Amino acid sequence: MHPGRASLIGLALSCTLAACSTGEPMAAAVAPPAPTGIEAPAPDSMRWLYGSGEAAGASIQAFRALADYALAAASDWPEQSVVMGLPDAEGGTGSATCRDADGSAKPPAVVFDVDETLIQNLGFEYWDATHTGGYDPKVWDEWERTGANYVAPVPGAVTTLKRLREAGITPVFNTNRSSANAEGTAAAIAAAGLGDAVHGETLFLKGDDATGSRKDGRRATIAARYCVLALAGDNLGDFADIFNAGDRAPLDRREIASRGSYARLWGNGWFVLPNPVYGASIEGTVGAVFPPEYRWRPTGESQ
Amino acid sequence: MHPGRASLIGLALSCTLAACSTGEPMAAAVAPPAPTGIEAPAPDSMRWLYGSGEAAGASIQAFRALADYALAAASDWPEQSVVMGLPDAEGGTGSATCRDADGSAKPPAVVFDVDETLIQNLGFEYWDATHTGGYDPKVWDEWERTGANYVAPVPGAVTTLKRLREAGITPVFNTNRSSANAEGTAAAIAAAGLGDAVHGETLFLKGDDATGSRKDGRRATIAARYCVLALAGDNLGDFADIFNAGDRAPLDRREIASRGSYARLWGNGWFVLPNPVYGASIEGTVGAVFPPEYRWRPTGESQ
Repeated sequence: MHPGRASLIGLALSCTLAACSTGEPMAAAVAPPAPTGIEAPAPDSMRWLYGSGEAAGASIQAFRALADYALAAASDWPEQSVVMGLPDAEGGTGSATCRDADGSAKPPAVVFDVDETLIQNLGFEYWDATHTGGYDPKVWDEWERTGANYVAPVPGAVTTLKRLREAGITPVFNTNRSSANAEGTAAAIAAAGLGDAVHGETLFLKGDDATGSRKDGRRATIAARYCVLALAGDNLGDFADIFNAGDRAPLDRREIASRGSYARLWGNGWFVLPNPVYGASIEGTVGAVFPPEYRWRPTGESQ
Repeated sequence: MHPGRASLIGLALSCTLAACSTGEPMAAAVAPPAPTGIEAPAPDSMRWLYGSGEAAGASIQAFRALADYALAAASDWPEQSVVMGLPDAEGGTGSATCRDADGSAKPPAVVFDVDETLIQNLGFEYWDATHTGGYDPKVWDEWERTGANYVAPVPGAVTTLKRLREAGITPVFNTNRSSANAEGTAAAIAAAGLGDAVHGETLFLKGDDATGSRKDGRRATIAARYCVLALAGDNLGDFADIFNAGDRAPLDRREIASRGSYARLWGNGWFVLPNPVYGASIEGTVGAVFPPEYRWRPTGESQ
């Protein structure tokens, strides 16, 4: 009762209720050979992220945990911001003080990535799913400038930003959209129901400093002004640049994020939103994703 | 600086660090035309779920929230199990009492789905990613019986089950693996470091009753014996059968899960683990996933 690769495109027609509604492993669908408009199967990753109740539940769950954590943290008036890739005394991944030079407390904030953390870029991903010309940076630039009416909030984001603001916690946006398009990005944030974003005050973009897509520098700028209670993003680079430094194999990068002191931060200062559609989280060959010790074969099947 | 569809296969070779490490939207990769062994690109959904630090962080975060929630709930000795698809007085989605007929308190439990909730079926998914013959139920059956040495725990699961057991809360497994293969499934759970599973006591499978892949019946059986504090799964059917009933369009199913009283359960009794690799969460055409109002096109591009 496990619909497989070959049958998934016809799944809605061919499967029984019992087979379609199970939570059992079945084969991953192969993406269609070429998108042919709205009748083509959507890529699995888009189906899950933009089309499933499971993904909606996952993001609502993550945002609830974030709001609960941040409200509790704010009531404690912490002395240090959350760990965020800033150099500590040992040159490692550290944080920043929550007091100004005169000893007064900085205002509390939570720092959010924007794309597929707070807003779903539905218009752009629809375009991506239906055209065959490959990625065009000019199209993305136009999207940053003009896409505001074609985005939706990630489920749970609106409620959580409202809870934060009501508690006196400032949402700060740290995105790799271009600083040249700050106006369009602020418009998209507002259109998604996520409130105001003011460039240089609560909105920080690529081009604001000389470190390109790396975010530690912007995090330092933000932490100089705010007591950062929590971070949220869909990419490890939204938490600390170190994860994306070098040229690590996917499972090495995964290992770093899921062991030791970093592991204790997930759901506890660091809040990740799932995004299997794009980014540094979807790299690797079959061999890189499945280590030799997990390479099972059915009886009688050779390598 | 957004690698696109056409270039993703060569991404590791062709992109700069800045382009590879950003959290910006970029195109989804098309799955390879046919898997050709370990050198082929893994499907995006598998890359994300099994190969990324982001997915590891997401599951650690979900399991932390679950354990925190369940321990707090247990200390309150609730009168009712969590909502779990059982008929309530109005015939809706209800719960069950936490007291036996004699008034004594039932022992506390958390009910888990197994596949891609607690264990990663790496061996089977490796096989799926590297063969072209389509899904074969005989292979899945062999996997249930013999795959124990080729699974890994979902990141965060081992720690959370340990925390639950130390607090006197019983993990109960409710899976759509076959009751005929209970032994193999218990072996897989144990091999993943998740402890004992005893068929009919803490392990419930498809075939235990006459309702097939639907889980409400097994949930009722479990709730008759335990006070169910929380549910965890990767499919909406792990929470209530109603989500998978009928033949709803993906976005209708998503809407039901993310509005009203159900929305308040995510992260608050119901805990979802992300799984974009298989299941009822990855269905729909481009048109079904992207409603008309989100169908953006760049300037000069026609429909």
